[in-house]
Amino acid sequence: MRCDVLVVGTELLLGQINDTNSSWIGDRLALHGIGSLMQVKVGDNVGRIEAALRLLLDGADAVIVSGGLGPTHDDVTREAIAAVMGGVELVPDEAVADRIRDLFARRGRRMPENNLRQALVPVGATVIAQTRGTAPGLICPVGSKVVYAVPGVPHEMKDMLERAIIPDLVARSGDTAVIASRVLKTWGESESGLNERLDGIIARLDELGDPTVAFLARGWEGLEVRLTTRQDTDVAAALVLDEWEAEVRGVLGPLVFGVGQQSMESIVLDLLRDRGLTLALAESLTGGLVASRLTAILGASDVFRGGIVSYASEVKFDLLEVSQGPVVNEPAAVEMAEGVQRLLHADVGLSLTGVAGPAEQDGVPVGTVCIGVALPTGSHAVTVQLGTLREQVRQFAVINSLDLLRRRLQLTAP
Amino acid sequence: MRCDVLVVGTELLLGQINDTNSSWIGDRLALHGIGSLMQVKVGDNVGRIEAALRLLLDGADAVIVSGGLGPTHDDVTREAIAAVMGGVELVPDEAVADRIRDLFARRGRRMPENNLRQALVPVGATVIAQTRGTAPGLICPVGSKVVYAVPGVPHEMKDMLERAIIPDLVARSGDTAVIASRVLKTWGESESGLNERLDGIIARLDELGDPTVAFLARGWEGLEVRLTTRQDTDVAAALVLDEWEAEVRGVLGPLVFGVGQQSMESIVLDLLRDRGLTLALAESLTGGLVASRLTAILGASDVFRGGIVSYASEVKFDLLEVSQGPVVNEPAAVEMAEGVQRLLHADVGLSLTGVAGPAEQDGVPVGTVCIGVALPTGSHAVTVQLGTLREQVRQFAVINSLDLLRRRLQLTAP
Repeated sequence: MRCDVLVVGTELLLGQINDTNSSWIGDRLALHGIGSLMQVKVGDNVGRIEAALRLLLDGADAVIVSGGLGPTHDDVTREAIAAVMGGVELVPDEAVADRIRDLFARRGRRMPENNLRQALVPVGATVIAQTRGTAPGLICPVGSKVVYAVPGVPHEMKDMLERAIIPDLVARSGDTAVIASRVLKTWGESESGLNERLDGIIARLDELGDPTVAFLARGWEGLEVRLTTRQDTDVAAALVLDEWEAEVRGVLGPLVFGVGQQSMESIVLDLLRDRGLTLALAESLTGGLVASRLTAILGASDVFRGGIVSYASEVKFDLLEVSQGPVVNEPAAVEMAEGVQRLLHADVGLSLTGVAGPAEQDGVPVGTVCIGVALPTGSHAVTVQLGTLREQVRQFAVINSLDLLRRRLQLTAP
Repeated sequence: MRCDVLVVGTELLLGQINDTNSSWIGDRLALHGIGSLMQVKVGDNVGRIEAALRLLLDGADAVIVSGGLGPTHDDVTREAIAAVMGGVELVPDEAVADRIRDLFARRGRRMPENNLRQALVPVGATVIAQTRGTAPGLICPVGSKVVYAVPGVPHEMKDMLERAIIPDLVARSGDTAVIASRVLKTWGESESGLNERLDGIIARLDELGDPTVAFLARGWEGLEVRLTTRQDTDVAAALVLDEWEAEVRGVLGPLVFGVGQQSMESIVLDLLRDRGLTLALAESLTGGLVASRLTAILGASDVFRGGIVSYASEVKFDLLEVSQGPVVNEPAAVEMAEGVQRLLHADVGLSLTGVAGPAEQDGVPVGTVCIGVALPTGSHAVTVQLGTLREQVRQFAVINSLDLLRRRLQLTAP
């Protein structure tokens, strides 16, 4: 089974937006044993979209086209697909139109009439109902092959791919094998370092052929080790993945912080919850980044009380009762952690103070970050050096602080 | 003149790396009046690279192929180009080989012999000398057309594009036109709504043919209106863009919040700075997101004092002196804004309280957000409905609150 990808949008040819949809789709398809051998970008031009669809259908069994489904005059993917389907008509779908009207009504906004362009469906196509945006997806048979259309907005595209397209492709492929993956998330080691540590396991897997192992770099979020197996049943696949997850964890130990959909912040919240502890944050250089990540997680309110963004030094002195003087050092980090722990009546205080740049501060170089942890059993702080670029320093500070708290909490029995 | 782009690398089809080369090239080409209408990704497969080159050469005057020039067995772009050139031979270029040997010697590293594969040049091609990596670029005539090969490593590719390829393309095109764009950033209107409002301008531009206008959706960040013109000189281009920017602003008014590299947060910080005002935030459902965005901007510390993430209701009552009772309503939002204004000694207080979901709170439905603004001249609050998905509600709350503050500040003279 081969499913190629076409992304549509003049802005994608010109770098106003980088296309990340096609390779994300390629990755998801590969996990289900479906190859994606050619991925094409064209602009908002009906003739070129049509030509690209014909070209890709020539070699592939299916094509996913992303983008060009919006309401405006330059959204012409629907027309191109109708042409490829043999010049079929586009007809309004009332259920789709109702969902569009409803979406505007719920947001209390006036609906411009051109939005109903999005309710046009080529005759013979099936609708993938829109649940997040206004544009529906489409499943469009072309002879024995198929074109899937999805919006270019990544979260809308991803939702439709997982919900409708992958199941349809798998059904068409007739392949009943189960391809399953497990992703182990690590923090604190380089890719070559992980590779070296896992040398023995990699050699054994190379010989066995299944499961396969791959490393995926996630930038600030660390590295993932992905195990993928192909088995007859879900149960058999889970057993294989359990076995090799245990092998990998045996070698990597606490470098593995989570698995699958877990994130560093969800892990920290779980550890706090298990121990009946509440958390408060005092953030300086990260300016609320740690708090915003924790509160993105459903159920954070069980354990997260809140925080102080003490960006100006006076806020540290006045509100957190940090001693007057330079504020990027371990004693100040401890005072911040203890200050917020006290002020917000939390069991645990976590603090970050540092120099995000571009210039040094009180003689402390750019990239220096002090992280303080105040636990019921006592307080301490560490200092780390996190590079020289502002955003990098801030993001690494976030993940470092959460990882530090994770490791400290894991030392305490729940 | 049309120059399409082919990027080569199996990892690019699978999301291990996102291709950013092709759209960067498209942007640079457009600046020189060269269109790039199709950009293709294929894996490290000589047959598919060759087929893609033939396909692109069919429609374009030139093709830039990026990647697959390395030393290993899966770097096969050279072979594919030689085939497209009519099956010419690959012969070693001694000058290139010397530079490769020299590079290893200077780094004090042993040179694996396979590196000399990179010195192979198709008969009839010209070398673009490598100055940063080991692989040279190639200029390969195919009939009256041309294929340029560059390494996939972005900084090596960019160097060769600017140094050799653009000058060669411009010379071939005989065209000296300047193509320039201006991006107007808007918030508060849907894509179809913008389209409708700009109907008259779009009709006039359609007739004129230049400048062109395009809409770019930026999700939570709003929509961009991009004007692009083709003129003889930079000065003429700037005049045209000035004229039509004024036309668009005349229609859209305060919907336009910025231009080019400006962001909603940079605009808010600039407005505060111009007015000599400091800001403090009280965030509940956004949990620090607003603060983290403001502090991502260099120079935020001039005006941003800090904030309180009052996630637990008790933090609102105890620290911000919000009246006991339900906390998602306009009076509570005003109390939060005034509370943080007072507590952090700021001129302006901005607050957000709302229901991010998944469940309603005190009978207030998911997606309800109250935003409070406390200015030196008085306080007030507004209520907005922002959807039902947690992350969407939070992100829309952020941009809505900044936009509200922007509009309020713009009513005050600096």
